[in-house]
Amino acid sequence: MSVVTVERKILQKNDEIAAELRQLFKKNNLKTFNLLSSPGSGKTTLLERTIDHLKERIRIGVVEGDVQTDNDAQRIAAHDIPVVQIITNGGCHLDAPLVRDAITRLDLTAIDILFIENVGNLVCPASYDLGEDKKVVIVSTTEGDDKPLKYPKMFRVANACILNKMDLLPYVDFDPVSFRKNAQKINPELIFIDLSAKTGDGIGAWFEYVMS
Amino acid sequence: MSVVTVERKILQKNDEIAAELRQLFKKNNLKTFNLLSSPGSGKTTLLERTIDHLKERIRIGVVEGDVQTDNDAQRIAAHDIPVVQIITNGGCHLDAPLVRDAITRLDLTAIDILFIENVGNLVCPASYDLGEDKKVVIVSTTEGDDKPLKYPKMFRVANACILNKMDLLPYVDFDPVSFRKNAQKINPELIFIDLSAKTGDGIGAWFEYVMS
Repeated sequence: MSVVTVERKILQKNDEIAAELRQLFKKNNLKTFNLLSSPGSGKTTLLERTIDHLKERIRIGVVEGDVQTDNDAQRIAAHDIPVVQIITNGGCHLDAPLVRDAITRLDLTAIDILFIENVGNLVCPASYDLGEDKKVVIVSTTEGDDKPLKYPKMFRVANACILNKMDLLPYVDFDPVSFRKNAQKINPELIFIDLSAKTGDGIGAWFEYVMS
Repeated sequence: MSVVTVERKILQKNDEIAAELRQLFKKNNLKTFNLLSSPGSGKTTLLERTIDHLKERIRIGVVEGDVQTDNDAQRIAAHDIPVVQIITNGGCHLDAPLVRDAITRLDLTAIDILFIENVGNLVCPASYDLGEDKKVVIVSTTEGDDKPLKYPKMFRVANACILNKMDLLPYVDFDPVSFRKNAQKINPELIFIDLSAKTGDGIGAWFEYVMS
């Protein structure tokens, strides 16, 4: 019982700080995306493609969340944009206080779009508002098409759903129609974007979503 | 501060119940495997293959863990073996009390091997002992080969590591040698089994591991 109380307090405190962050982002005319997925769905590759395509038109910043290592931040930094790594040291999600600390190391007036790449986990990060404008869940065709039913909260809170690794569709047992149907059962408002971050197929719709 | 204390108490209580479970499993001559992975690594498909191959030789039971739905339990039940579904209702891992409740619905004297399929999550389940003999982490070739460095605790606690979806290796950027090297940095004792649960290639080594 005490655990539930503590968890509720943590989430309440998180939401307060997320509201502060939302105001701060707004004040700086910053559009923010919280990228959420299982490990290995291709979040970082998608982010690299997005940076390469958009960075001449718009100023991008990134907050990277990982349980351990700064591998992803190093991959992003190679694209010459500001990036801050959060290492959660075993923690299974980013929370608003972690993001608040991280962004003190970014010049928010010099950024138009901030991508926050969350810890690879389809469960816990769904509960933590980071003050972002949009939550984007990324699923790959190598995962099962029943994932929305098995991890409903993530699909309920997401604004958009990217189905990545469409290039692997011929080699896996994944039915995109059934996937969409399952996701729409959970969240009828969800926007779907099918693409391959590797080949670039379909990625234009994602760039449009980001810039809209 | 209070959160840390509560978490420590939960883990301590979990370990006490896991120790009870371990004794109970031993008393019933039951060999137990805790299967751990990201969502979509192919745990259930591997389990289905394993059941089909071994069920004439040995009596198998399964505990299925999911955040929501009993899809996996239904897939397993179709293979005519006893299965119990735990739905965590948002919870990100199985714990020993949940398993203790679940196995009251199994006749342990009528089972030789118990597989516990954990919630799809590479972070939280690593911290919860379920009284099992072996922890087996399953990774697929569609995930990045740096996963052991990014999710070290899971690879530290695992006894064996299955690299699944070897049939997709020609279509993905995954270096199995680098993967092993990364995993061995974290856990030099780790046993590796490369296979494709879909085609069956390499799966014999896994059956041997289970039966040994």
